[in-house]
Amino acid sequence: MGRPIGHTQWAIAEGYIPSQSTGPQPAMTSHETACLLNTGDQDAHVEVTLYFADREPVGPYRVTVPARRTLHLRFNDLQHPAPVPRDTDYSSVFTSDVPIVVQHTRLDSRQAENALLSTLAFPVPP
Amino acid sequence: MGRPIGHTQWAIAEGYIPSQSTGPQPAMTSHETACLLNTGDQDAHVEVTLYFADREPVGPYRVTVPARRTLHLRFNDLQHPAPVPRDTDYSSVFTSDVPIVVQHTRLDSRQAENALLSTLAFPVPP
Amino acid sequence: MGRPIGHTQWAIAEGYIPSQSTGPQPAMTSHETACLLNTGDQDAHVEVTLYFADREPVGPYRVTVPARRTLHLRFNDLQHPAPVPRDTDYSSVFTSDVPIVVQHTRLDSRQAENALLSTLAFPVPP
Amino acid sequence: MGRPIGHTQWAIAEGYIPSQSTGPQPAMTSHETACLLNTGDQDAHVEVTLYFADREPVGPYRVTVPARRTLHLRFNDLQHPAPVPRDTDYSSVFTSDVPIVVQHTRLDSRQAENALLSTLAFPVPP
Repeated sequence: MGRPIGHTQWAIAEGYIPSQSTGPQPAMTSHETACLLNTGDQDAHVEVTLYFADREPVGPYRVTVPARRTLHLRFNDLQHPAPVPRDTDYSSVFTSDVPIVVQHTRLDSRQAENALLSTLAFPVPP
Repeated sequence: MGRPIGHTQWAIAEGYIPSQSTGPQPAMTSHETACLLNTGDQDAHVEVTLYFADREPVGPYRVTVPARRTLHLRFNDLQHPAPVPRDTDYSSVFTSDVPIVVQHTRLDSRQAENALLSTLAFPVPP
Repeated sequence: MGRPIGHTQWAIAEGYIPSQSTGPQPAMTSHETACLLNTGDQDAHVEVTLYFADREPVGPYRVTVPARRTLHLRFNDLQHPAPVPRDTDYSSVFTSDVPIVVQHTRLDSRQAENALLSTLAFPVPP
Repeated sequence: MGRPIGHTQWAIAEGYIPSQSTGPQPAMTSHETACLLNTGDQDAHVEVTLYFADREPVGPYRVTVPARRTLHLRFNDLQHPAPVPRDTDYSSVFTSDVPIVVQHTRLDSRQAENALLSTLAFPVPP
């Protein structure tokens, strides 16, 4: 414990938050999550930039992953500088001041049963 | 923003578009998507080649991902030089003139409830 | 086209074929698939070895991916030297004489609706 | 066979065990699995550390993957030094004395139909 592992920049090309959900809230609300792991002894200050199909990028959103902690960040919760639009394709890039590990997960509950996807984000080489 | 990240060639070994769908169209049409992210300041000109089990490769399909934009490309929409056959196994290779990031997603709505899969494409080393 | 891309060895740590399926056969039979892409101009001769929790590895299974072709290999179909046991945890390692790309997909139709997972296999460094 | 492949450290940023399940037990119990493959001729002694959002890391949990074997480890089964809390975000880091390959899978059966996700864990560079 204590050794920082991972990369300081990660990209997730897929992004989409459906506006509709079914099932008990909020656990079953359709959502996109970026799971951020900081194994090091320094807090990770992370800037998130969102890319869209038809407008300029928005950001940075700022989040902190404390030392030796994980943050499962719901894109649904990002508010500043602007909420993430629903039913809209986007991508995201994460830039951290210390190495972290980023994994992407989506819960899609538009239909009666939920669907899950997950994949490692792309670790940008230094 | 502005710095291009990723690779100039990516491969997706899995590919399959079911001919059947359930649910509201077109959001719930069974589809395969390649999410392409271009974080740089130059447009990305991308050539896609499809590989099949029993015939020669088809392509290139040409798409452009504008500077600082994402393109969630549905294979269902590719028409030239030939539409992508349904119920047929295929693979795809993406070659871009500037670095991009590619992620693969499938929505399968053959049955009443949708299923999702997603994975990072294989980044071909330079 | 013609340039071989990928690695000559890949590993998939996850493996499990349920013995039960629902839905129309064979498209909806529960199955595990390894998608193999050979972009080069030489046929790829691939040896697959299966690892289990409580017995020695089994293999090699031998498959050929022709030049410029993809093969979506169902583990369910492997028969020699022995069929793949159902309801049994396993892992697989692919060794090819030319570079290929390998992606792993599972369709699980034990319950009424199908579930999908997919992930890039682990590319073993040369 | 016999050559160890993979890395000695892997990270999985996503982790979450729902407290609810549906369907026949235990196959359909909601669970998180880390599939560990040891292709080498020496047993792999693996230490797992769990990271949380709001408390110090817990571990090491100790598991052994015998030579030439796979272990599909259910996080649900980890008991020492402490069981894995349900309905709680976590991440995990695997450290092994010999190279292994790690893949992450979740079966989520909170609703009537199961959902699956899977992704390669992040291989920490040596």
